[in-house]
Amino acid sequence: MKTTRIGIVGYGNLARGVEKAISYAPDMELVAVFSRRAPLQTESGVAAYPMEQITEFTRDIDVMILCGGSANDLMSQGQDIAKHYHVVDSFDTHAKIEEHFQNLNTVAQAAQKVAMISIGWDPGLFSLQRLYGEAALPNGKNFTFWGRGISQGHSNAIRRIPGVADAKQYTVPKEAFLEQCRQGNQQDISAEESHLRECYVVLAEGADPDQVRDAICNMENYFAGYETQVNFISQEELDRNHGTMPHGGFVLRVGETAPGEREVIEYSLTLDSNPAFTASVLVAYARATMKLAAENRHGCFTIFDVPPAYLLPKTPAEIRHLL
Amino acid sequence: MKTTRIGIVGYGNLARGVEKAISYAPDMELVAVFSRRAPLQTESGVAAYPMEQITEFTRDIDVMILCGGSANDLMSQGQDIAKHYHVVDSFDTHAKIEEHFQNLNTVAQAAQKVAMISIGWDPGLFSLQRLYGEAALPNGKNFTFWGRGISQGHSNAIRRIPGVADAKQYTVPKEAFLEQCRQGNQQDISAEESHLRECYVVLAEGADPDQVRDAICNMENYFAGYETQVNFISQEELDRNHGTMPHGGFVLRVGETAPGEREVIEYSLTLDSNPAFTASVLVAYARATMKLAAENRHGCFTIFDVPPAYLLPKTPAEIRHLL
Repeated sequence: MKTTRIGIVGYGNLARGVEKAISYAPDMELVAVFSRRAPLQTESGVAAYPMEQITEFTRDIDVMILCGGSANDLMSQGQDIAKHYHVVDSFDTHAKIEEHFQNLNTVAQAAQKVAMISIGWDPGLFSLQRLYGEAALPNGKNFTFWGRGISQGHSNAIRRIPGVADAKQYTVPKEAFLEQCRQGNQQDISAEESHLRECYVVLAEGADPDQVRDAICNMENYFAGYETQVNFISQEELDRNHGTMPHGGFVLRVGETAPGEREVIEYSLTLDSNPAFTASVLVAYARATMKLAAENRHGCFTIFDVPPAYLLPKTPAEIRHLL
Repeated sequence: MKTTRIGIVGYGNLARGVEKAISYAPDMELVAVFSRRAPLQTESGVAAYPMEQITEFTRDIDVMILCGGSANDLMSQGQDIAKHYHVVDSFDTHAKIEEHFQNLNTVAQAAQKVAMISIGWDPGLFSLQRLYGEAALPNGKNFTFWGRGISQGHSNAIRRIPGVADAKQYTVPKEAFLEQCRQGNQQDISAEESHLRECYVVLAEGADPDQVRDAICNMENYFAGYETQVNFISQEELDRNHGTMPHGGFVLRVGETAPGEREVIEYSLTLDSNPAFTASVLVAYARATMKLAAENRHGCFTIFDVPPAYLLPKTPAEIRHLL
């Protein structure tokens, strides 16, 4: 089996997950890490290079897995790096996916590279379930629930409030709405009403809890409109009980094949580690990226363009055993 | 949008499901039904022709959806019909899928047709989940549970027992094993121990219930080795309470991204009508069949070969909205 040579760009939690996931892939080899903070010691011991050297590895690396953040890194990095390598990213700013797609499509087509974007679980495996659900039950409706899990964005938003020393926010789907979907009811619900926001907050010395609670609950775009629970705890308790990164969620397709004949598809993830799982999905799609490239296909692709068989390091006959 | 012209082969429950599903597809048109029992009145009013006339429609029909049974019809019918049309089937005899694939691949390549086999939910959407699960969590294990739902094969087996007037058999997954999977435990379990077989039996006049019960519970390949419940009821009760065809099941992928770091993927179906849902999936893959054909791809394909985007009657940009 020909080995796919991988480079990792960035070196946070997601990157360390990719590093680990490659160790479970018999057909992949990690060649280098690129980071603004290089030199640094990687967990696997692979060499880390400063970003400036990234163009020097075109004969040694096939696919770059981009592990920066959607807000600041991925849009610009992708366009730079896809000039030289196939790239895979987990771009998750839903509102900008189309712009990102068009930009990368232009760059990757010109460079004859494959750029695979928005890979992970949402967008990613959840997107796939939304599509398959709509295909199988065109007369129906998709429902997505997130959690129970830590939202990094909401946790950060709480930490920016004056008087807050540290915080973690869990997004929690409300069981009653989930249950309605499972019964085949096509409800008209918003994310606000179907989710609870559970906050664990460490107050700074002398901060007023009521003021902090108000600031959280009324924060536009994050908490306003949601049922929000604010729990004040010590730093020690936060570190002890809220130090991991669990997440998950549900995608349901609720449809009818005839009036009153209800069919329900439910997909759920229960993840001990959100970044490790996302990373594992990225590595599978790096494999698919090489298969598209081997067919001389170039440009930007999403999870919807990838034949499932391209994801496994197995022969077609071996894969058919999974039928 | 160009319309795909469909023919249905066979006219049982699955075929009637396809007939209905086409009515939900804006890009499909049902042209004819072919049946050994023709002439017959179809539910949609479309014309039914005897099987002998099937080769006369090569200018009017693009894809034939084969709705016969795996045991007797699909292997031979597929080879005959794929000489003239693209075909889609729901062949579900797992042990013979590879043989069926190779046969149809030869025929369809020679005829420059697309033959799409083993489409439905198992094999089908469940197979997809087994593949995506393995791709996302290579260090893990797949578990498939069937039910609660009616197994036609097991119901028929009971009906063949002397002293049985009628019967329905529900396959039921055992909750305790499901729960173990959900907790991330990679158990070593067999289908026998993880499923219950629930039988509703109408005795013939003068039949001995104990004898019938013994005959059911000890039937090799069907019930022996399973926990089996036999309930004797009246024909009237059977018709009233067990007259529909619900089914469903679960596919779980349980894996680790690091020692002790557990990730669980669960997929489940809860179906009021097994044949209607299977039919709906077949229609989506008839659409994909046309897209493969438009790329001049020929031969036999499975659900693993189909890019998800080929399943919806939407533009690529519209499909990306599902990300």
